[in-house]
Amino acid sequence: MDLTEKKLAGEQVFSGGFIKVQRDSVALPDGSPAWREYIRHPGAVAVLALSDDGKLLLERQFRYPLARTFLEIPAGKIDPQEAPLATAKRELLEETGYRAANWFYLGKAYPCIGYSDEVIHYYLATALTAGERQLDEGEFLEVLTVPLAEVMTMTLDGRICDSKSLVGLHWLAAWQRGELRCEAL
Amino acid sequence: MDLTEKKLAGEQVFSGGFIKVQRDSVALPDGSPAWREYIRHPGAVAVLALSDDGKLLLERQFRYPLARTFLEIPAGKIDPQEAPLATAKRELLEETGYRAANWFYLGKAYPCIGYSDEVIHYYLATALTAGERQLDEGEFLEVLTVPLAEVMTMTLDGRICDSKSLVGLHWLAAWQRGELRCEAL
Repeated sequence: MDLTEKKLAGEQVFSGGFIKVQRDSVALPDGSPAWREYIRHPGAVAVLALSDDGKLLLERQFRYPLARTFLEIPAGKIDPQEAPLATAKRELLEETGYRAANWFYLGKAYPCIGYSDEVIHYYLATALTAGERQLDEGEFLEVLTVPLAEVMTMTLDGRICDSKSLVGLHWLAAWQRGELRCEAL
Repeated sequence: MDLTEKKLAGEQVFSGGFIKVQRDSVALPDGSPAWREYIRHPGAVAVLALSDDGKLLLERQFRYPLARTFLEIPAGKIDPQEAPLATAKRELLEETGYRAANWFYLGKAYPCIGYSDEVIHYYLATALTAGERQLDEGEFLEVLTVPLAEVMTMTLDGRICDSKSLVGLHWLAAWQRGELRCEAL
């Protein structure tokens, strides 16, 4: 069954400081017309940063849309023309002050397929060394190092409820069990 | 450390057929001013529907923002004044034709905390009975029943890369291992 929706025309209908909304007219699989509205996003990375003594770097950050803080893995948007691995290294350093000697690619996931074209690339970073963080102006966050077994419990008891982080930790748990091969970079 | 960002004022700056964008001026933790833009979303549900013979219901759906199909668990938006469990039962029936005798609440996750207030409530549905599906007009999707072990492999090899589904399957795997208690409804 061909489920393809064909683009007929489209335009950007909103452009704010961060959010850009695209609206396209499409032909559905049966040929009937419909509209599709969605966010255009530059893509992002997320980093599972695991220390030699088995602790994971987490951040606590206030997320305004939900008016509360969340425990998250380090993450950030890809800058124009930036390679995703470079974004991962930059964001880890800026937000936590850590550098990693070893980088692995875990995979990509799509956080919001109903209304955003965002993709998130996931990296595993090991052999960490601590340094000075370099937060962007107006960026406020706490860095925590938590034993990985405790982090995995947090994915099940509600303490970690950010989907981006839950996906990364699903893959990290599988990697630990030897069920997920990841590519050394 | 108080990370709270205080709302000073706000307005809806875009309202499309589906997407609504809110823009607020806020005071950052140090008192400096900033803008926050985000999508207002009514919330959603997702359903892990597990048959007596250990197969999970999946859907293949074309997702226009990414211009491709995805394998997903059944899910849908909460209607105004609708209880999330009612949404879960309605979406499962409409999209797959299945009803479930037993419902459990697995937890909630936030798919897009950077720029959307969406929350997704996850349900486990068992004791399934098949019937006629009742797709909305303009809705096209395929329903698959896949052995759960195979589904779990699909979360690791890229065949399932929708974050909403990955989160639900992370929790379902933990439930199977006896690590996640869920509430019978």
